[in-house]
Amino acid sequence: MELQVSSTLNLLRTEIVFQHEITGVITEVGSNVKGFKIGDKVGVGCLAASCLKCEFCRGSEENYCDKVQFTYNGIFWDGSITYGGYSEMLVADHRYVLHIPENLPMDATAPLLCAGITVYSPMIDNNLHKLIEKRVGIVGLGGLGHVAIKFAKAFGHHVTVISTSPKKEQEARKLLGADDFIVSTDPKQMQSKMRTLDFILDTVAAQHSLGPILELLKVKGTLVLVGAPDKPIELPSFPMIFGKRVVKGSMIGGVKETQEMLNFCGEHNITCDIETVTSDKINEALTRLANNDVKYRFVIDIAGKKSSL
Amino acid sequence: MELQVSSTLNLLRTEIVFQHEITGVITEVGSNVKGFKIGDKVGVGCLAASCLKCEFCRGSEENYCDKVQFTYNGIFWDGSITYGGYSEMLVADHRYVLHIPENLPMDATAPLLCAGITVYSPMIDNNLHKLIEKRVGIVGLGGLGHVAIKFAKAFGHHVTVISTSPKKEQEARKLLGADDFIVSTDPKQMQSKMRTLDFILDTVAAQHSLGPILELLKVKGTLVLVGAPDKPIELPSFPMIFGKRVVKGSMIGGVKETQEMLNFCGEHNITCDIETVTSDKINEALTRLANNDVKYRFVIDIAGKKSSL
Repeated sequence: MELQVSSTLNLLRTEIVFQHEITGVITEVGSNVKGFKIGDKVGVGCLAASCLKCEFCRGSEENYCDKVQFTYNGIFWDGSITYGGYSEMLVADHRYVLHIPENLPMDATAPLLCAGITVYSPMIDNNLHKLIEKRVGIVGLGGLGHVAIKFAKAFGHHVTVISTSPKKEQEARKLLGADDFIVSTDPKQMQSKMRTLDFILDTVAAQHSLGPILELLKVKGTLVLVGAPDKPIELPSFPMIFGKRVVKGSMIGGVKETQEMLNFCGEHNITCDIETVTSDKINEALTRLANNDVKYRFVIDIAGKKSSL
Repeated sequence: MELQVSSTLNLLRTEIVFQHEITGVITEVGSNVKGFKIGDKVGVGCLAASCLKCEFCRGSEENYCDKVQFTYNGIFWDGSITYGGYSEMLVADHRYVLHIPENLPMDATAPLLCAGITVYSPMIDNNLHKLIEKRVGIVGLGGLGHVAIKFAKAFGHHVTVISTSPKKEQEARKLLGADDFIVSTDPKQMQSKMRTLDFILDTVAAQHSLGPILELLKVKGTLVLVGAPDKPIELPSFPMIFGKRVVKGSMIGGVKETQEMLNFCGEHNITCDIETVTSDKINEALTRLANNDVKYRFVIDIAGKKSSL
């Protein structure tokens, strides 16, 4: 990644990597930019621009600015459309560029910029970094879920994975450190764990009913939705009302919090479990992705491919 | 209503009124009961018994005790089934009996014991009694919604009624004091009020989608469900995630909070708008109820009918 900034626009010009979870090395820095220099390891997540004036921008929650522009399919300051990180170079505004801790690898850190902050932010928002030994459930063991386990364990909680796939139990427990595993399609297992969890993070992007999952929460427990199914989720009123339960939505995080997450990951040596592919293998990777055959994120090493050309 | 208590069971024996929104006058008091005397105006709501030991019972939230027994279709201390208030007399445990403020009428106060506390409790839980001039939305203008308007106005908020019935606008504004009215089936009206409300109370008991209603909330706004549709509610993930919105469930309230609500109603002269019928008119009332033809609750005056027989 190269960082380059025009003196008038305060932009950073960066060289590549992946769609909206982009890491690279700065190659140019604008003259008005402070805090970044050529050679820095940096990342760019979903955010390309925002209004900088609203309560959310002022409160470091640019992600909720209603004029937010994403790094793909958004409109950059100069009016150009943003195309994400599938390119050899990227120009980014320094206000949305993150420092990557020195001890973390560029590839396995990249997915933290969306998947990571998506699961980290609601945990902070619900005080999981302050609370002692809570019972935390993670629904779905994929790109988001696997890193959520790592965060919840790093915060010192008892972690239960809730998944439709019994075959994932071994990896959840052995590789990722989960303390418990519930097969969500097994009513007996679900029944036996009713009212046991304090907090659930639901990372599932497929349509599903929240009813059985909500029953796993204690009274007044909270479930945060971070997956985004196309079709509405089914929300039965009874487990909500009788259990005084709470369902919240959460979308990525602001720039400040994303930097805090990266620093936390540096301190706790947390990265994503990835498979790195070169850009000539993208189609193969996409086919495997469609078959749910990846643990847990593909990372495309465009710079690597380039250097081997 | 009569209150009567056996010395061993600490029960109150009461004379009638309505299913689970019951008011009456105490006729007998058990020897171990304190705080009640013959002739007191009292009420009994949904709660007949609870475990008295769990964190919820100890925290005056008997309504969330998982052994709670309701005043109808529950099991009383002596093992008998509870049949609600459609009777001339009721024996109640003094721990679930409420004092009715002297200045409030028995009939228009009765529905406060379920409808009233159902909408009051989530307002207190979300600090509407402490916050200044928030924008509050009430979805559905019926037995729950009309008293919710009164509470929200008494707390000093700007109140918007959201209803499928344009014909209810006049009564919402003129009779109940609502400040604004949105016809939820009119996309233009809904669109023009996007991101304007801080808090929404959804009292609708019919199946519906929360999507358009959630869009009325500001970012981080809260919607509380108190209606209980049989079928799941549709919850689209996008307004939840992009707006970091919160959906909560809430069910009636504990005994302590119900008494606080009644005291608040006494101070602010809040009662329900009712039509009182004698018990020989119940079938007629039920037919009208099925046609949504009541403003806003029928109250059956069993004692009145009895005295006129």
